[in-house]
Amino acid sequence: MEVKLASSYGFCFGVKRAIEIAEEHKNSATMGPLIHNQSEIDRLRNNFNVNLYNSLDEVRKDDTVIIRTHGIPKNDLKALKQKDVKVINATCPFVTTPQQIVKKATEDGYCVVIFGDSEHPEVKGVKSYGNDNVIVVLSTQDLENVVFKNDKIAVVAQTTRKKEEYLEIVNYLILRHKEVRVFNTICDATFENQDAARVLSKEVDVMLVIGGKNSSNTKQLFSICEENVESHLLEDENDLQLSWFNGKKLCGITAGASTPDWIIQNIINKLKIIK
Amino acid sequence: MEVKLASSYGFCFGVKRAIEIAEEHKNSATMGPLIHNQSEIDRLRNNFNVNLYNSLDEVRKDDTVIIRTHGIPKNDLKALKQKDVKVINATCPFVTTPQQIVKKATEDGYCVVIFGDSEHPEVKGVKSYGNDNVIVVLSTQDLENVVFKNDKIAVVAQTTRKKEEYLEIVNYLILRHKEVRVFNTICDATFENQDAARVLSKEVDVMLVIGGKNSSNTKQLFSICEENVESHLLEDENDLQLSWFNGKKLCGITAGASTPDWIIQNIINKLKIIK
Repeated sequence: MEVKLASSYGFCFGVKRAIEIAEEHKNSATMGPLIHNQSEIDRLRNNFNVNLYNSLDEVRKDDTVIIRTHGIPKNDLKALKQKDVKVINATCPFVTTPQQIVKKATEDGYCVVIFGDSEHPEVKGVKSYGNDNVIVVLSTQDLENVVFKNDKIAVVAQTTRKKEEYLEIVNYLILRHKEVRVFNTICDATFENQDAARVLSKEVDVMLVIGGKNSSNTKQLFSICEENVESHLLEDENDLQLSWFNGKKLCGITAGASTPDWIIQNIINKLKIIK
Repeated sequence: MEVKLASSYGFCFGVKRAIEIAEEHKNSATMGPLIHNQSEIDRLRNNFNVNLYNSLDEVRKDDTVIIRTHGIPKNDLKALKQKDVKVINATCPFVTTPQQIVKKATEDGYCVVIFGDSEHPEVKGVKSYGNDNVIVVLSTQDLENVVFKNDKIAVVAQTTRKKEEYLEIVNYLILRHKEVRVFNTICDATFENQDAARVLSKEVDVMLVIGGKNSSNTKQLFSICEENVESHLLEDENDLQLSWFNGKKLCGITAGASTPDWIIQNIINKLKIIK
């Protein structure tokens, strides 16, 4: 069976990069879980002895410590660097950008608005690069009682937020302030996977969507593919059924955002031996 | 008859200021018509010998030349200053602001988008403070084929544009570029007159709306007032009718954006002698 992968699928760029960094640093530890996928964390521990620290107190001299994709607050990074350990920064570049924007905008005298969840590790990290003039909001309601110290506002968004909701926040601010400096820090990864699945499902004879059967992300990919071609949702290679490929020449593959590449590869290997 | 003026009416701040400047400079000339109101231009010529130049060629040595509220292109101002004349700048401060924003943003390497009419004198003036990386657009369609030299965009609006339309332009840009620096340069004058008329018409026994009977701006004020109280639209004191004030104690007054104060004052003087 001939196989074609979607041009974008599975883990986003930042997660793939963090996993490669972890694999390159055997016997290291990550500060907090590297990604939200237990089987992948288990694999990194079993195959590369990459361990998991949940607090700075667990860090020991001469450790190699990996900062995860979400990043960590500025002072935690500083404390870590003072501990006589090797720090490997796997913060996603798309998260480093808003961190640096908040730092620069604060230095330039802007009040900063972060659109996101104040309890999310990414947002906590981004916020830490500013001062008292940084606020985190989830809706325009959160802005109603805010008194800004000046009329120059800079705005960034948590990378995984919806653009439509970001524009609501931004428009509210533009109508009320002289200058609003809007940084588009939202990452397109989820939408890229969906767009690529849509394109590929029109080219192939059958489509496999790999991911958790309860994952809303994976189910959305499945529903997109199903509109164009016979499609099947599977969690791993054990779910494969030979009957799906009768009379088919080209099989397309996509995967949900929490599906590790090795699960996808196991499926591809099995597909290759189907005539 | 007791009279109360709306808290905002008639000419906007910038036009009132320009007229005061013209009155303070007898025997001067304005570069282009100072305002869009012929009877006011006639009055300035008759009472203060303020003349009207339509091109730089008309300017003579030792003239006093007044720059009108809309401003003029940078190079015209430079040429004027080299002519050995006294230049009085009556450019509205709300127009000077976008001029300076375009200058600074261009120096800082931003591509600049001006939302407005490229043929309007204000926009021509504002645009002249930038370089080749400044474009003027009236809708998102005008942006579709634009190739920006970098991903840092600054946006300003012609002062008299509608905010809703400005947000459309701004949102289009935010979704497509890394940084969009939005300057809210729209002037609230028109809306301030409407809001003030709405408030005053609820307080008084009768409302006079002074302005051209064909002026859409004046008609809009009239329709707002009429919802709350008996209202009359008049062009000058000759339109006044005594019957309007029978049994009334307090008369409210507002005026369209092209109504000179002296027309309003003539009406107030007549009202004061009505018992």
